[in-house]
Amino acid sequence: MRNILIIGAGKSTSVLIEYLLKKSDSEDLKIKIGDLDLESAKKMAGTHPRAEAVALDVFNRDERQAAVNEADIVISMLPARFHIEVAKDCLHFGKNMVTASYISEEMELLDKEVKQKGLVFMNEIGVDPGIDHMSAMQVIDRIRDEGGKLLLFESFTGGLVAPESDTNLWNYKFTWNPRNVVVAGQGGVAKFLQEGKFKYIPYNRLFRRTEFIEVKNYGKFEVYANRNSLKYKSIYGLDDVLTLYRGTIRRVGFSKAWNMFVQLGLTDDSYLMENSEEMSYRDFVNSFLPYSPTDSVELKFRHNLKIDQDDIMWEKLLELDIFNPNKKVGLKRATPAQILQKILMDKWTLAPDDKDMIVMYHKFGYELDGERKQIDATMVNIGKDQTHTAMARTVGLPVAIAALKILNGNISTPGVQLPITREVYTPILEELAENGILFREEEKEYLGYNPFGEVGN
Amino acid sequence: MRNILIIGAGKSTSVLIEYLLKKSDSEDLKIKIGDLDLESAKKMAGTHPRAEAVALDVFNRDERQAAVNEADIVISMLPARFHIEVAKDCLHFGKNMVTASYISEEMELLDKEVKQKGLVFMNEIGVDPGIDHMSAMQVIDRIRDEGGKLLLFESFTGGLVAPESDTNLWNYKFTWNPRNVVVAGQGGVAKFLQEGKFKYIPYNRLFRRTEFIEVKNYGKFEVYANRNSLKYKSIYGLDDVLTLYRGTIRRVGFSKAWNMFVQLGLTDDSYLMENSEEMSYRDFVNSFLPYSPTDSVELKFRHNLKIDQDDIMWEKLLELDIFNPNKKVGLKRATPAQILQKILMDKWTLAPDDKDMIVMYHKFGYELDGERKQIDATMVNIGKDQTHTAMARTVGLPVAIAALKILNGNISTPGVQLPITREVYTPILEELAENGILFREEEKEYLGYNPFGEVGN
Repeated sequence: MRNILIIGAGKSTSVLIEYLLKKSDSEDLKIKIGDLDLESAKKMAGTHPRAEAVALDVFNRDERQAAVNEADIVISMLPARFHIEVAKDCLHFGKNMVTASYISEEMELLDKEVKQKGLVFMNEIGVDPGIDHMSAMQVIDRIRDEGGKLLLFESFTGGLVAPESDTNLWNYKFTWNPRNVVVAGQGGVAKFLQEGKFKYIPYNRLFRRTEFIEVKNYGKFEVYANRNSLKYKSIYGLDDVLTLYRGTIRRVGFSKAWNMFVQLGLTDDSYLMENSEEMSYRDFVNSFLPYSPTDSVELKFRHNLKIDQDDIMWEKLLELDIFNPNKKVGLKRATPAQILQKILMDKWTLAPDDKDMIVMYHKFGYELDGERKQIDATMVNIGKDQTHTAMARTVGLPVAIAALKILNGNISTPGVQLPITREVYTPILEELAENGILFREEEKEYLGYNPFGEVGN
Repeated sequence: MRNILIIGAGKSTSVLIEYLLKKSDSEDLKIKIGDLDLESAKKMAGTHPRAEAVALDVFNRDERQAAVNEADIVISMLPARFHIEVAKDCLHFGKNMVTASYISEEMELLDKEVKQKGLVFMNEIGVDPGIDHMSAMQVIDRIRDEGGKLLLFESFTGGLVAPESDTNLWNYKFTWNPRNVVVAGQGGVAKFLQEGKFKYIPYNRLFRRTEFIEVKNYGKFEVYANRNSLKYKSIYGLDDVLTLYRGTIRRVGFSKAWNMFVQLGLTDDSYLMENSEEMSYRDFVNSFLPYSPTDSVELKFRHNLKIDQDDIMWEKLLELDIFNPNKKVGLKRATPAQILQKILMDKWTLAPDDKDMIVMYHKFGYELDGERKQIDATMVNIGKDQTHTAMARTVGLPVAIAALKILNGNISTPGVQLPITREVYTPILEELAENGILFREEEKEYLGYNPFGEVGN
């Protein structure tokens, strides 16, 4: 029997664990699920005879090392900053490891030793990062195999609410960590390439520099730029690329409305507000507007942000009830971002029947035999219910598939790595497709980066 | 003979040194001027028999300590972060000390020992901080002596170009450290009180939330909020104050135009731009605008910031020549802020005949015998030439006067302090007035914070 240790039994692990349990007889697996909270682990393990739930404190070295030592492979679903201690133990005890997180600098530093020991430390193998890497590299490698040269790569992902559960004016609900949504785009300028020119968007312009994309059967979406587009130049080997742009997908109109919060300073996470606990939602908003002895918070808001009488953005604000003088914030020593998050969670939390949706969109522009071409590839995945969310599926399945393939020696090139080689992405994408996670490709006219699609005077 | 050691012979020390040399015979002073650059020190010392220029490296402990030990009082005109080592030496050798900088936490920590040794470490005694403290506390103490209760305190200072040298569309030239102007307002939210309400302005709104003030004979100015208004509540003892607001003065229209740079991200100092050295001014601006195969940088700029055809802001941009494709940035590994500074210095550097101007404006609102009243106090000081600037005068004179009064025992209350007590401000303000630095007071109707001056619908 082979032992798989899964550390961290959060919401996103449901599909991961189900997949492995389903294969546990045929593959002869024992699945140990460790979490600081034993109840969470038990809930995930259920009554399956090949599953075992244990209380596991990753900060307790002895406990952690004992668990790692017993395993044949370790899957860490902890928050990214906690992987490193687990990784060091895996290195020490000679165990392979899988995470869905970006490779940290500390993790990267283990690469040499990991290789020396012949181990596989597979990271960035969730949805984004994960499926984005694999699906992009598959097309990029195919274009190159044909003799093509990549000119443009744009890639967008969004975790959204499914159309059938899309019931508010923002066309948005929290399907993942709300905090990440509130502080999205902060912490550095967005930097990318457009037709060979480096371009920079500061935070305060980010949500007004969106562009539209259209996904067949799902209509229009908008995307705002991610911070880190340029690093994909070296990761994907896109040395000659002229346009390199990654972004986050929202439904049309979200970003322009969200920008109201950015402009007033409601998303700021860098300081604590005075008296935050006793403040009403209305007081909170009023803190960012000038004092007036007579004018209403509403009029000051409209005037400050130049919102016309008939602008639908206003209705979006009302829907959030942010001008309510009776609802208390109730958070001690809170930042504006924390307070805004609380206000949004009143309205944007998924209802029990709500379904989520993952949308991914890649554009590949290339030159082949003197001709310029473009392929657009899109993937949409919709959740089944609150346990089998699209997020849990698109994160959990690639992690689970990779773990099993590493365990079985199908993926064996050693090192601290991400899934960008054929050895890794080919079998995993194949199995993802069997599970309904697949891309629809379409040939397009290559226009380069040219948002209006035409030139002229 | 009493020895005064001045460390740092920068531009701002000219008036300070002149004042002390003028008094050196009657007061029996020897002025030693130490600077890392001996030539700077020599230039300041001139040929005066009571002045001595020395090369002094403050990072050389022996050199520094020898100089401090010889002195009867030490004036540190170094950048603020370098005071602390000098201060520790002053403490060790039992010497009084004067600086024009804000009291750092490290400096504050010396307070107990400074008091034990009966020493005076006077800080924040330049213009802002300095004259602002003294002139404000004099009026505040007078109102309190009469039995009044402070309700409102607003205070604004600006280092500007004098009207006779005001020759550009921005009505601004660099009269002090250009870098501080470019990054002004960054690093934290502006926080203040208006009629008992805490108010917050994020950086991206700062230059659009200006208010106007009017100074007799000088016309209208505008002010934007400083970051740190609230700390004056405890410093000045303004416990019951409803409105507490400090700001920076500019000529009308500056901030709205400056905001173009803020919005596009040209003032960002947090990252290095690619290829900054080879970039033209036009390339620099274009980096913050979307790529277009056809549209001009000019039209993209206008469109992105919604600048009308007839908006004078546009002429301000042209005046700076920022769309020039032939002027090279020429700075290696530079941030946007550093590049913008370079572009501005082409146009905003003072010409040899140009004069600078310091403007200070305080509003004091208070209640006395059931009546609400207001006093506005204003000070304007205009430089004589490039050596005797208003900045050098308003920084140097209070420092020099304080140093001499401490040396003569007229100011003797020990401790790490700033000039907010009568003992300190009364004689210094008196002597500043004799030197033409004086405030004009005017009684006004008290309206509280009420920008439109009326209520109603």
